Amino acid sequence: MTYRLLYLNIRARGEPIRWLLRALEVEFEEERIDMFTEWGAKKEELKWGQTPVLEVDGEHLGQTTVICRYLGEKHDLAVEDSWTATRQQEAVEYLHDVSSLAAFAFYFRMKGDEEQKEFFMGRVRERLPMVVKNLEDLVTDEAGWLLSPKMTWVDVFVAAYLDQYVDMIDGLLEEAPKLQELLARVRSLPSIQEWLEARPALHEFESNEGL
Amino acid sequence: MTYRLLYLNIRARGEPIRWLLRALEVEFEEERIDMFTEWGAKKEELKWGQTPVLEVDGEHLGQTTVICRYLGEKHDLAVEDSWTATRQQEAVEYLHDVSSLAAFAFYFRMKGDEEQKEFFMGRVRERLPMVVKNLEDLVTDEAGWLLSPKMTWVDVFVAAYLDQYVDMIDGLLEEAPKLQELLARVRSLPSIQEWLEARPALHEFESNEGL
Repeated sequence: MTYRLLYLNIRARGEPIRWLLRALEVEFEEERIDMFTEWGAKKEELKWGQTPVLEVDGEHLGQTTVICRYLGEKHDLAVEDSWTATRQQEAVEYLHDVSSLAAFAFYFRMKGDEEQKEFFMGRVRERLPMVVKNLEDLVTDEAGWLLSPKMTWVDVFVAAYLDQYVDMIDGLLEEAPKLQELLARVRSLPSIQEWLEARPALHEFESNEGL
Repeated sequence: MTYRLLYLNIRARGEPIRWLLRALEVEFEEERIDMFTEWGAKKEELKWGQTPVLEVDGEHLGQTTVICRYLGEKHDLAVEDSWTATRQQEAVEYLHDVSSLAAFAFYFRMKGDEEQKEFFMGRVRERLPMVVKNLEDLVTDEAGWLLSPKMTWVDVFVAAYLDQYVDMIDGLLEEAPKLQELLARVRSLPSIQEWLEARPALHEFESNEGL
């Protein structure tokens, strides 16, 4: 099985997949597409016109949450019970949804449209604390993972998004000690730690400044 | 197993679940929440602050695509092979994504913000034909269902969204004869036909007029 990840040269929706591939310690190649100089042409080549895309033995698979679930199940980093998997997937989708709102906020900030930027940041500020509160309730007291006695792809996915969101809203994890701990534990996996040290710094347009 | 569906009194993201519950011929109750008079208070009661929600034996499950997959697998209207299920889920998510763009277009039209309405409709016009083209490629020549020799929840899901989108973009299914046929076959299931005759007419704010 060979993997190749295609995504823009930003964190956003590709970062959970990057973390997960590293947490799984599987080999993969990565193509980082420059948003401004390369994306226009690349988009035309992609069947669904979007990234992230994971090439699995040459076949393209899209959609962040689908890719992550696929990888988690394939490499035994998943729960077996189907109702639990459903509850995990629900949580994953709620957290992932915030990324669309944030993406529009970033887009309108880049366009200099303060009013629309504020509209979407308002939605992010409304949604994110609620999502965090609910995720906190899903972390088990004993093991400290989301709806599971052992770490699954869902923990890596949640950690990779929270890592991006903690700076966006002041005190986001203040009342979520279990998520703080979960994020710290995922960040301290050797393969993730290595990535955190090696990954490119944030572009100016990805920063939370002025959101 | 008792089911109760909570959603706004519109079609949109709730309609695929309504169609699926009927296609499965399972009993369920439905609470239709008025967008203008009831939603504000109801939102506060809901853990994730969003609908649709399916109550499963009193427990709340959210997210349209998660609910539909859950119901499909639970009631044997699903493929068994996990790679095929992954490919189906990918297609489902791409189609479902369009509903967020459309929702913003409807929202900004309601607010009388022509420029923002046009921004989001531009995205819908760009995405939807591409998604339809790709879905068409996934319909099998023999059986006429999406990546499956028999009808699955994915076909019902796709049909329920296409039923809403066919009027939005002129000639959307013109080059998609297999999807036209799939839509017609799902619409002609007795339980769906019954629903199409019984369901409330579109509200003015749900119409495609002026989009």
